[in-house]
Amino acid sequence: MAYTIGIVGATGAVGQELITLLESRSFPVKELRLLASARSAGKTMAFKGKEISIQETRPEAFDGLDIVFFSAGASISRDLAPEAVRRGCVVIDNSSAFRTDANVPLVVPEVNAHVLREHKGLIANPNCSTAIALMGLNPLHKAFGLKRFFAATYQAVSGSGVKGMVELEKQIRAWVNGETATPEVYAHPIAFNLFPHVDVFLEDGYTKEEHKMANESRKIMGLGNLAISTTCVRVPVMRAHSIAINAEFERPVDLAKARKAIEDADGVDLVDDPASNRYPTPQACTGVNNCAVGRLRVDSALENGLSFFVAGDQILKGAALNAIQIAEALPR
Amino acid sequence: MAYTIGIVGATGAVGQELITLLESRSFPVKELRLLASARSAGKTMAFKGKEISIQETRPEAFDGLDIVFFSAGASISRDLAPEAVRRGCVVIDNSSAFRTDANVPLVVPEVNAHVLREHKGLIANPNCSTAIALMGLNPLHKAFGLKRFFAATYQAVSGSGVKGMVELEKQIRAWVNGETATPEVYAHPIAFNLFPHVDVFLEDGYTKEEHKMANESRKIMGLGNLAISTTCVRVPVMRAHSIAINAEFERPVDLAKARKAIEDADGVDLVDDPASNRYPTPQACTGVNNCAVGRLRVDSALENGLSFFVAGDQILKGAALNAIQIAEALPR
Repeated sequence: MAYTIGIVGATGAVGQELITLLESRSFPVKELRLLASARSAGKTMAFKGKEISIQETRPEAFDGLDIVFFSAGASISRDLAPEAVRRGCVVIDNSSAFRTDANVPLVVPEVNAHVLREHKGLIANPNCSTAIALMGLNPLHKAFGLKRFFAATYQAVSGSGVKGMVELEKQIRAWVNGETATPEVYAHPIAFNLFPHVDVFLEDGYTKEEHKMANESRKIMGLGNLAISTTCVRVPVMRAHSIAINAEFERPVDLAKARKAIEDADGVDLVDDPASNRYPTPQACTGVNNCAVGRLRVDSALENGLSFFVAGDQILKGAALNAIQIAEALPR
Repeated sequence: MAYTIGIVGATGAVGQELITLLESRSFPVKELRLLASARSAGKTMAFKGKEISIQETRPEAFDGLDIVFFSAGASISRDLAPEAVRRGCVVIDNSSAFRTDANVPLVVPEVNAHVLREHKGLIANPNCSTAIALMGLNPLHKAFGLKRFFAATYQAVSGSGVKGMVELEKQIRAWVNGETATPEVYAHPIAFNLFPHVDVFLEDGYTKEEHKMANESRKIMGLGNLAISTTCVRVPVMRAHSIAINAEFERPVDLAKARKAIEDADGVDLVDDPASNRYPTPQACTGVNNCAVGRLRVDSALENGLSFFVAGDQILKGAALNAIQIAEALPR
């Protein structure tokens, strides 16, 4: 059994990683169709040693595809994902367009693969910080019953796509030459800087990214009343996100049990031996499938609380890897 | 009335800033004695247009000094600060050596200048992240009564002194040249990276830096029961720290009142107009005396809670400026 696969946004950071993963994970691909903007049409990209010509993303391009990965932003997903579903495709959408739609499963396979049974052709891939945070939170939730969490993120520029990485590199190179590169992607310089601004600001003073982390965490974990407060911060790191979390639980916590819960969970490694300087860092997580959890400790300001630090590759578990894992977990 | 002043650790990042501040703030200096390790003895540094020769830090060097700033690490302070006090100096110590000593006032002048009346010759200057956090927390405490806070820091390499800044620069320059510079100051690369490791790890899984933030906050604010949980993270930023804070209060919070409390407080600016991309960033705080507070919002996971982001120059309010402000506030 092999599938015809489409990738919308094939030339982007996530699109490129999807191509790599389809190959490296030996996903059963019968045909791969690479779709992008008209600007990229006609260029080629390599897959299993062959060059594939990029086509413009148009409704007809979806005909005959089994699975289409969308990773070209929310407005393209809103316009074209329903079109692909109408033409018989299963869409795995990396944008925020449908994530909170009650009819669309939002999935981190290690957490809620079971909801895939109810999909109606469209499946949403979560926000990158949310997916990475849940890799640490969910095993602890299963052990102690999650009630509330506070999170502060350290988000890599890859979250803004290739252009975010280009912007950081450009500013770094300018600085080394004693020059200044004017910010184009971000409102402020990102080299040697950071800012509590990821996605747009909303009425209540939180950003849309902060709301995504809260709403998506509740939906994926199936915990409608989970209390969440997050601060999302962009940092001068290339492609792995880190998150500092204080989590409060229903039941008394036990550090040994917490460590075992992380150790036993799929997709996450316990990297927690401070005496040997072992704890999660974004650089060590770059290019790595598993997220890393460390600095696990009993929280000093919560009744049944644990603090920890989690890091994961933003383009992998935060996007492309999770999307492929959804495809792998689809009911046959 | 003018003072004879000594600076121990004159060649360090904080020492250099102390010299600059004594001059720029027109501190009444009768004589300035620059003290450092034997290695630096004989070199000169400029003060008010004159070159001053650096002397080795020995007990006799304190004779005749009115005020001595110590900024050469905890072990030198432990060895020599009591010696300076014995010789009649008032010591303002930037190290952690005496901060939790019940007989030593620990002071952020905007918060607790009144305790200076009780000093016995030795006054401690707080940890940099603590001083910066309190610039945001204290005005809100006065308005609503602080009960508990969670903090995640984004700490600049200047917190490790000149060598931290040199390390980041060296790694950045190597990266641009396609090379790798081996970490010397930190356990991991800091360029394009970050790690939840500032100071040493303690038994309970928190670091000493995280304990400092908790213990020093309680002491400076005079709130012995304040519940605090922090995660301290080193980031590739040169010299300003940022901190994401979720704070819980005794009394119901009001956003307008909170904003006014920050606006009316000394030493801190409300930088909070997200619609115009105005919020605190470490780069904008570099070289600036006042700390910046922004992203002020009603916390979504606390009963009477406020979230905010605060940034401040680590060498200024986090060290040298606060030390000079203590000297300025000394009872005459």
